[in-house]
Amino acid sequence: MEKKITVLPGDGIGPEVVASAVKVLQVIGKRFNHTFHLDYAAIGGAAIDQYNNPLPDETIAKCEASDAILLGAVGGPKWDNNPPELRPEKGLLKIRKHFDLFANLRPVKAFPSLLASSPLKREVAENVDLMIVRELTGGLYFGEPRKKTDAGAIDTCVYSREEIERIVENAFELARLRRGKLCSVDKANVLDTSRLWREIVEEKKKQYPDVETEHNLVDSVAMKLITNPGHYDVVVTENLFGDILSDEASVITGSLGVLPSASIRGDNFGLYEPVHGSAPEIAGQGVANPAATILSVAMLLQYSFGLKDEAAEIERAVAAVFDDGYYTADLAQEHTRSLSTNEWTEKVLNEIDASF
Amino acid sequence: MEKKITVLPGDGIGPEVVASAVKVLQVIGKRFNHTFHLDYAAIGGAAIDQYNNPLPDETIAKCEASDAILLGAVGGPKWDNNPPELRPEKGLLKIRKHFDLFANLRPVKAFPSLLASSPLKREVAENVDLMIVRELTGGLYFGEPRKKTDAGAIDTCVYSREEIERIVENAFELARLRRGKLCSVDKANVLDTSRLWREIVEEKKKQYPDVETEHNLVDSVAMKLITNPGHYDVVVTENLFGDILSDEASVITGSLGVLPSASIRGDNFGLYEPVHGSAPEIAGQGVANPAATILSVAMLLQYSFGLKDEAAEIERAVAAVFDDGYYTADLAQEHTRSLSTNEWTEKVLNEIDASF
Ligand SMILES: CC(C)[C@H](C(=O)O)[C@@H](O)C(=O)O
Ligand SMILES: CC(C)[C@H](C(=O)O)[C@@H](O)C(=O)O
Repeated sequence: MEKKITVLPGDGIGPEVVASAVKVLQVIGKRFNHTFHLDYAAIGGAAIDQYNNPLPDETIAKCEASDAILLGAVGGPKWDNNPPELRPEKGLLKIRKHFDLFANLRPVKAFPSLLASSPLKREVAENVDLMIVRELTGGLYFGEPRKKTDAGAIDTCVYSREEIERIVENAFELARLRRGKLCSVDKANVLDTSRLWREIVEEKKKQYPDVETEHNLVDSVAMKLITNPGHYDVVVTENLFGDILSDEASVITGSLGVLPSASIRGDNFGLYEPVHGSAPEIAGQGVANPAATILSVAMLLQYSFGLKDEAAEIERAVAAVFDDGYYTADLAQEHTRSLSTNEWTEKVLNEIDASF
Repeated sequence: MEKKITVLPGDGIGPEVVASAVKVLQVIGKRFNHTFHLDYAAIGGAAIDQYNNPLPDETIAKCEASDAILLGAVGGPKWDNNPPELRPEKGLLKIRKHFDLFANLRPVKAFPSLLASSPLKREVAENVDLMIVRELTGGLYFGEPRKKTDAGAIDTCVYSREEIERIVENAFELARLRRGKLCSVDKANVLDTSRLWREIVEEKKKQYPDVETEHNLVDSVAMKLITNPGHYDVVVTENLFGDILSDEASVITGSLGVLPSASIRGDNFGLYEPVHGSAPEIAGQGVANPAATILSVAMLLQYSFGLKDEAAEIERAVAAVFDDGYYTADLAQEHTRSLSTNEWTEKVLNEIDASF
């Protein structure tokens, strides 16, 4: 297979973790006989510095000419006081909208060897294996009117039937490939957008009689994600609820630094990035944990290129390195020495090489 | 002191837990020489059944003639398929709006003897003592336009400067009475209402130089509430974020069934209710945990009547009963026998009597 990937290193630790992930991508390419052509482009703060634009046209053009996008992270204190249009995260919001990447998939799965880092009791966190499916291009994030004056401000939450239908279908399909359970999250006791959301889930579920479907209110899910996270398989929700709940869920298993994400649309095109941010406080020190970005490459191979064995091999290698007791500083436990970004990446590369 | 309280038992376990709380209120009145006049009225499902209205005018009139309101809980499957205007929670939303109860205070404090029930590790949960201050009468809950058609739906998030100013001031004042720390939560990287919110906090903080103030994004707080809940003192946020975060926070200490809340306005009038719902599945069995409603009476005495010693005595008695190893079924641990609602309430009453 021959594919083009646009790589957007971004800010902070972005370039470091992306460099690691690219090494893993290339070794997988070699081992499985694929050619991945990489093209680098600017986004976020780096793009503001160079082009005065968090998402330059040149970057869009490169992404349009490729089969998938790998992103590091954006943001940092340097740009915190910029006007809204010149902030790094605007690049992220724009790329999602421009490419209509409406489905944000965020898997949260316990690595047994990382549970010691979880704030939750082992018995609560150990069997967690859930996927949050967040609508990514609608709702309060993009609705008009939005306005701020000195006297007041307004934001608008809008959803069309089509926008809800496509994300709900996506979630049902994913549930079918997993354990066949779907929890749809809304605030239907208060919001009209949620009432429509709930109606559409009720309609669609007739086409998925094999999927066990439930509705739950966002406040209630915010509790149950902590008291009984093992209950969930696929959780589908709108943009802002998904932002909050997926970040909440990311801490369950103690593996925040190792969580990948995919932002995809109807065809196979997608953007892949770690869940964590740009961590400017540790940037440039060579100590960042590259696991989340490496696992984002696995999602890229699986969802955009349909390469399941290749994705599974990356996941296996990462888990094996953790099981062998190798951690970067963020996960190192009392009795373990922490590895640098490069040292840890070498372990993963060796693990993949050794399996051939 | 002589005061009038309107009691709204509501649905499900509401009447049972309210009956317990009223007993505690009366014994405190006797011990401290106060007269509390109680007047009962209907709200929620009970009011729909009797008046076809979740908040009858008669109930409003009684509340207007009193100094504070004590509420049990509303809702249940019986009314789940009613149209929006005839649903129990509409009664709750209307009473908040009618009386302009804009500040919802939700304290979360660890009871050492309940930590075994927490999903969090003991060392994470044990020193938690935080207060969420949620704006309760604005934002997406009440903004216009709101509309649902078959083709799409819309909700509107609106805040005026005054609405933000009064809740922010309220939170600063509370922080000053507590440990002097305030975390303001918004989504200022995306929402215009959040940008105004953040500006107003920046302005107000000049009047509270003794309060240590920080801003944090809602997604980030959703994580940190679980990884490091001990970090927080007072957390202030808008209506919907507050709904989600306060429910999330309620599970930290394992004491969801014992959390009280206050919904107040500028003068001393307020509505007090347990954080938990109407739990229809256990209603009428005499097994409900009345602790949250009893502690809501403590908040009522403190915030509406300024009776600090009386409030402290209730809190002391409840903690003492837990420390003695007495629990209702929801909290009972393996080796303990669980008490009925009435038995447990007796323990609290005896504890108060014994201290005089
Ligand atoms: C940076 C921010 C705009 C973004 C969001 O809210 O979507 C981030 O929190 C995320 O979840 O990817
Ligand atoms: C019942 C519902 C409308 C209500 C809310 O969302 O405010 C409840 O969740 C609460 O927090 O009191």
